[in-house]
Amino acid sequence: MVLDKIKQPNDIKNLTEEELKALPDEIRNFLINHLSKTGGHLASNLGTVELTMALHLLLDFPKDKLIWDVGHQAYTHKILTGRASEFDHLRQYGGISGFPKREESNCDSFDTGHSSTSLSAALGYCMARDLAKEDYKVVAVIGDGALTGGLAYEALNNASRLKKSNFLIILNDNEMSISKNVGGMSTNLERLRTSSKYVGLKNNVLNSLESWPNGESIIRKIRSTKNGIKSLMVPNMVFEDLGIMYLGPVDGHNVKAMLETFKMATGINGPVLVHVITKKGNGYEPAERHPSRFHGTDIFEIETGLPKRNPNPGYTDVFSTVMRKMGDRNPKVVAITAAMAEGAGLKRFRNMFPDRFFDVGIAEEHAVTFAAGLALGGRIPVFAVYSSFLQRAYDQILEDVCLQNLHVVFAIDRAGLVGADGSTHQGIFDVSFLSAMPNMTIMAPKNKWELSDMMKYAVGEHNGPIAIRYPRGEAYCGLKEHRAPIELGKAEEIKTGSKVMLFALGSMVKKAEEIEAALKEYGIDAGICNARFAKPLDKEYIKGLKDKYDMVVTMEENVLTGGFGEQVQAFLCDNGYTGKVLKIAVPDEFVRHGSVTLLFKELKMDSESITRKIIDALGK
Amino acid sequence: MVLDKIKQPNDIKNLTEEELKALPDEIRNFLINHLSKTGGHLASNLGTVELTMALHLLLDFPKDKLIWDVGHQAYTHKILTGRASEFDHLRQYGGISGFPKREESNCDSFDTGHSSTSLSAALGYCMARDLAKEDYKVVAVIGDGALTGGLAYEALNNASRLKKSNFLIILNDNEMSISKNVGGMSTNLERLRTSSKYVGLKNNVLNSLESWPNGESIIRKIRSTKNGIKSLMVPNMVFEDLGIMYLGPVDGHNVKAMLETFKMATGINGPVLVHVITKKGNGYEPAERHPSRFHGTDIFEIETGLPKRNPNPGYTDVFSTVMRKMGDRNPKVVAITAAMAEGAGLKRFRNMFPDRFFDVGIAEEHAVTFAAGLALGGRIPVFAVYSSFLQRAYDQILEDVCLQNLHVVFAIDRAGLVGADGSTHQGIFDVSFLSAMPNMTIMAPKNKWELSDMMKYAVGEHNGPIAIRYPRGEAYCGLKEHRAPIELGKAEEIKTGSKVMLFALGSMVKKAEEIEAALKEYGIDAGICNARFAKPLDKEYIKGLKDKYDMVVTMEENVLTGGFGEQVQAFLCDNGYTGKVLKIAVPDEFVRHGSVTLLFKELKMDSESITRKIIDALGK
Repeated sequence: MVLDKIKQPNDIKNLTEEELKALPDEIRNFLINHLSKTGGHLASNLGTVELTMALHLLLDFPKDKLIWDVGHQAYTHKILTGRASEFDHLRQYGGISGFPKREESNCDSFDTGHSSTSLSAALGYCMARDLAKEDYKVVAVIGDGALTGGLAYEALNNASRLKKSNFLIILNDNEMSISKNVGGMSTNLERLRTSSKYVGLKNNVLNSLESWPNGESIIRKIRSTKNGIKSLMVPNMVFEDLGIMYLGPVDGHNVKAMLETFKMATGINGPVLVHVITKKGNGYEPAERHPSRFHGTDIFEIETGLPKRNPNPGYTDVFSTVMRKMGDRNPKVVAITAAMAEGAGLKRFRNMFPDRFFDVGIAEEHAVTFAAGLALGGRIPVFAVYSSFLQRAYDQILEDVCLQNLHVVFAIDRAGLVGADGSTHQGIFDVSFLSAMPNMTIMAPKNKWELSDMMKYAVGEHNGPIAIRYPRGEAYCGLKEHRAPIELGKAEEIKTGSKVMLFALGSMVKKAEEIEAALKEYGIDAGICNARFAKPLDKEYIKGLKDKYDMVVTMEENVLTGGFGEQVQAFLCDNGYTGKVLKIAVPDEFVRHGSVTLLFKELKMDSESITRKIIDALGK
Repeated sequence: MVLDKIKQPNDIKNLTEEELKALPDEIRNFLINHLSKTGGHLASNLGTVELTMALHLLLDFPKDKLIWDVGHQAYTHKILTGRASEFDHLRQYGGISGFPKREESNCDSFDTGHSSTSLSAALGYCMARDLAKEDYKVVAVIGDGALTGGLAYEALNNASRLKKSNFLIILNDNEMSISKNVGGMSTNLERLRTSSKYVGLKNNVLNSLESWPNGESIIRKIRSTKNGIKSLMVPNMVFEDLGIMYLGPVDGHNVKAMLETFKMATGINGPVLVHVITKKGNGYEPAERHPSRFHGTDIFEIETGLPKRNPNPGYTDVFSTVMRKMGDRNPKVVAITAAMAEGAGLKRFRNMFPDRFFDVGIAEEHAVTFAAGLALGGRIPVFAVYSSFLQRAYDQILEDVCLQNLHVVFAIDRAGLVGADGSTHQGIFDVSFLSAMPNMTIMAPKNKWELSDMMKYAVGEHNGPIAIRYPRGEAYCGLKEHRAPIELGKAEEIKTGSKVMLFALGSMVKKAEEIEAALKEYGIDAGICNARFAKPLDKEYIKGLKDKYDMVVTMEENVLTGGFGEQVQAFLCDNGYTGKVLKIAVPDEFVRHGSVTLLFKELKMDSESITRKIIDALGK
């Protein structure tokens, strides 16, 4: 096995030409084998095997800095920096992360997870290097999907200041974000990829190259470079008008061609973008055919590509169904996604109501302000988004939606602990940041029926900004009998008790049931209340707890600071409650990757730990 | 006076050609006269007089939708929609806002204040209109400065889907944000403005126009259009590659030329961008010469343009001085601004250390991730930013800085109530949203010396993400004798007391002094503590309050929810405090414009109201 010769960074440089040829297949088999057992981001990593090899042949680690945008495509980078042996525990508790992590390796230069940050971070590195008069290469790898994010454009717009500075941008163009890409830029890239008429312009461009600082020598190199580069040089005014030299497109599965081009590019002063064409899922047929499904996959059977687990319907499915129904009933309902049609459950809505479905690209800020415009134009927009990505639109939610008190529905998926994706993807801040926004309403369902009811309430009865947060994974099917109509700011008491009241938000109601049962064995009769609303709180109900319970236990899948529990506690204390308030919430730290079950345990938020805390606090 | 004939929307259409000619001068005089007495955004409004007239001649209000990006340039729009008589109270409490406000007029289509939102909002209107099969025009006016914001690019990238839909984008190009513009896009626009070689390409472009849906008739119109349009048609691939037709540049002080071009543009299917060249401050010499100073001006003398009030040194000046000193002493210190070099106090740093100063454009997201890269490269970046604009980088602060625990200093100016700019500019959310972020440290100085000490601490002694928030306006010069060294998470007790402790954050310490004096007259001996840190809290000190005081009054210029007070209260209650906690903070509502003094009164956060609340709560 050639792979066995890769023990540490830069080992790839010692391989023979023969070995280098054998390596891509070995890496692909390695990835397919391991990910079939652990799950992970398969398609994007199969697409970047050769690209990563070329970069590792070019760069000197850890001196040079390589920044992976989003970071889910860095598996081969992990392998080539000596982490192959750790792939048995990929994305598992205590194992290596699915994203670059500086704490894991000094060859990981920037922790990523969210889209479109690589160019800004790389520019920071470049400027710091130049100021310190140091000498290392800085390379950012950004997908065409990530290029739909405004942050990437802000960085491109700033890159032109690097007139004499070495900065290599690799545009990894696979025509996909997670869904198929959208927008003018993607049309532009499509044209670069396919149009032969542009190739005819090559000579004009070579001529214009002469005006670049060291253009002539580049032209010489270009003329002597052999093959594998599709058209070597087509004009791309979008980049060149922004002061960034464009080279490409280059075949992203041809290591030699890429390496030659990269070497040429790093010889040029100023920012250079090399356009590399890769194929998501390359080399594994099921992933090539279904790149979206294999973007992030659970464990699967290698032969068929079929998932080995068929999970029970999740909250996303429930959301998907209710959206389809509401879309049918109310022509005003429109749906927005930021490149997550499948993940966020809008595929069916898209198929049934293509005119009312908007995939805006990886552009959460635009999604929200666009929704504000749609609302003012008389539509009822539903923005389905993962909690951790909604963070990107903080200002737009506050200024464009809440300030104008517009009827925009935020369907917040993956709210709470998400598991294997880890710290960048945990949806644990939304209750806090949305609670501070005037005019905002925040709900969380206890089970699948309640998600459906809340969506109907948010779309059909409410008027103003409203958010519904629900966790990743299986939808809870208990407590079916508790289905009182949703009323603004009204909690739903599931069971009265004495002494202890478990006041739980959304997903934590299920845990409250378990805790209630466990407490019974200690002779403690705890009540359970489903908060339903994190904002506005059911103040009347909370006031009523004051005299009935010695202890109120607030429970939420969100950080403690500024969350549900602190609001409840503040209100209780303001109203003279002198009992104990026990706040179960995510502590003030980032939460790493691992199974949700293990993470709950580590955070002491599992039923057993909570029960123990209650017993302790009661002094029993 | 022609202006007297403008009583309501669309009245401009009844003016004679003579009257239209006289109107710009009248409006300019009106603006100069009024703003010399009230203050306001002068330069940008002097630049858009004719542009607004042309738009009002084109559009039918309120049916058509006109969206002003940022919105500070909409004064002429306010005048032409019948609000001239209200300019005596511009930006004053109870008077009209300096920004578009839907509650003020149905001719204001979208409330703006923050940059780069107009295109997204306009796209929302367009889609809503098309879905409802309605028929109205949608026009967005965006400055070249706002075009440096990524959100605008996200919208441009999405605009191409409007293939058959009417959408007019006016690019109001004055070569300025508030400071002089930066970046590749601005260089690109500069070339369009000045380069004559592009004019030679005109015929090529006319030829390529034939491929547009109704290109031929446009060509006919272009050929028959007379004058005032500089070059009618130069190719701009940045826009056209994104699927947006580009027309221009057009003289933005020639109403006729603009109107002709706008009419032509609205006859084209799909998104059309008209590039209009205006001059900031046009027609008033002091503003032409000093557009940055006259961006937002206090009251001034018309003859000289000199300010009538010379305010005492503000916190911004203190920051400016300490930055200069630290820059001198430590070559690692670098400074970042998002188009606010003057406002944020970085002019002197820029002049002294041009290599270490970065104006990234109106691109707060990029600024933060760029800072993360700089920190990793060994620099100590200080990002000076207004509180309300920092909101735009929520995700980058959390994911790129805090998650990696990087040493980035956030110098948060305009934290607290800002006054005349109103709801979009109040800096009242930062304590809440930053408190929820793991690894973040938050400080607020009580007076000018403490700001200086805190900056030195943040840059020289701390390691990790750290924010210092200070308010707009005059720096407090009291309490000079209290200058104990800054220690992480340590509060500074100014005075012990009995019964009541005033626990104040930053700017509220000064108010605490006033309240302490007032309470003395009631025979109440209140203590004063300067919290210094909103995160981490001085838990040891707070614990100590438990047995000494019946009432703890928390005071902050920030929203109540998730803020300083709730954290203090939660900690007190968790530790068995049974006394009263009175939380003085901004309630859960948006705060409109008006003098800071009046706003404090309205919010019952002035010393008198707080004193009254304390007395009431004590039952006296």
